[in-house]
Amino acid sequence: MSVLAGVNTKVLKNGDPAPAPPAAGTFRIYNMRFCPWAQRALIYASVKNIPSEVINIHLQEKPDWYFSKHYKGQVPALEHDEGKKHVIESAVIPEYLDDLFPETRILPTDPYERVQQRLLLDRLSAVAPAFYGAAQAVKNQEGRAEKFAEVLKAFENAENLLTADFYSGTSKPGFVDYLIYPNIQRAYWLAHVLKDSDFPISATDFPGPNFPKLTKWYKALEAIPEVAAASQPTEYGVGFVNEFLKGTPNYDYGL
Amino acid sequence: MSVLAGVNTKVLKNGDPAPAPPAAGTFRIYNMRFCPWAQRALIYASVKNIPSEVINIHLQEKPDWYFSKHYKGQVPALEHDEGKKHVIESAVIPEYLDDLFPETRILPTDPYERVQQRLLLDRLSAVAPAFYGAAQAVKNQEGRAEKFAEVLKAFENAENLLTADFYSGTSKPGFVDYLIYPNIQRAYWLAHVLKDSDFPISATDFPGPNFPKLTKWYKALEAIPEVAAASQPTEYGVGFVNEFLKGTPNYDYGL
Repeated sequence: MSVLAGVNTKVLKNGDPAPAPPAAGTFRIYNMRFCPWAQRALIYASVKNIPSEVINIHLQEKPDWYFSKHYKGQVPALEHDEGKKHVIESAVIPEYLDDLFPETRILPTDPYERVQQRLLLDRLSAVAPAFYGAAQAVKNQEGRAEKFAEVLKAFENAENLLTADFYSGTSKPGFVDYLIYPNIQRAYWLAHVLKDSDFPISATDFPGPNFPKLTKWYKALEAIPEVAAASQPTEYGVGFVNEFLKGTPNYDYGL
Repeated sequence: MSVLAGVNTKVLKNGDPAPAPPAAGTFRIYNMRFCPWAQRALIYASVKNIPSEVINIHLQEKPDWYFSKHYKGQVPALEHDEGKKHVIESAVIPEYLDDLFPETRILPTDPYERVQQRLLLDRLSAVAPAFYGAAQAVKNQEGRAEKFAEVLKAFENAENLLTADFYSGTSKPGFVDYLIYPNIQRAYWLAHVLKDSDFPISATDFPGPNFPKLTKWYKALEAIPEVAAASQPTEYGVGFVNEFLKGTPNYDYGL
């Protein structure tokens, strides 16, 4: 049973009343079920076993009150202390949760090792704009070859930077593994949509034979129950991407 | 006497031999005298009283060996432990120095207060692209009005977010103050270059009467000896910006 409550509830949108503040001692994560950034917070809460209430937000018709949780109206936002504390940004919330719950710390305690995890995440981050670029190129053929080449380059870089079983540098997944997984998973979904095209990433044995280390890594990550509990099934992810590519994202896809 | 040694030495460039690794127990910062990002590391080392050797790098003719210090060849890079440890990124190096030297910690110890400082720095960061946009608009008039408007907007935002004497939220400067100061200072230099134009920021009582809190803030920051030791004199900064705008930056300006 997952510690995440309400992951699969419908989005709140403009006109919907604001939820009551979270009860004392409880955590709330504002989310969108298919958002890779928000998923970082869900995975971290799940792996650290922090009971959390999840509220999904309609990202095109945002409720006015949501801007009091996140000044830009983006997800994720973490809310606690009876609604008095808010933390935003997908790479910051996990570090904050490690600081609040050091007994389940995922980041290393050594300052140099910790800082290297932050810097490694930066080096992998090209995966995300490459995905969005490729998704754009599906809708608008202009620059398609260059945009697909960017995806290939980002995955080659990710393959090269994987020097152990996990990006933690050990045989156990760590901060970078949990945070980059959602971005890699978006390319997995897109590979299903584009499986009969020249998209350089394979949906079968994803990301395919050119990336033997990443293939093993991805299988290991997706098999972790706490990661699965914070993820949407492939069928829904692929369905969401299909509608997203048509310009009509359905944030409640599959519900 | 500043703890920063070698700030005003000429840049090393392609063809120059690599310096010997820093001695055991000593720190080195790779810098460019007019780079606002590198200046963040210098200010932090200066305020924390960490004796550091500064080596300046030619950013257009980079030495090959420099890519072993920073994989992208940018500044700043922090090197220590006899050349075995490297930390990069202007917002990461200061946090790392606070972790290594907690007795002179600048960031708050409370996790929530600390994370709010990181997020506040993000909210102020539009000052930097606004400066580069305005500098571009000086060279190429296209979009000049919009780019100057971006500077005004970034400074209005910075004025509104200053709710105490300093961005630390207290009467003592903190992490955000030290890190955003170099970016604000670049606009000060540019305001000198553009002082008889429609540039929305004043070089006199910088940034001018529309920004009373920032005006007081800037004067307070520039008067701190440790900040001044990590900064170039206004005359050199303005001279550098003038040549930068012509497309011929002189990294050794004033030496």
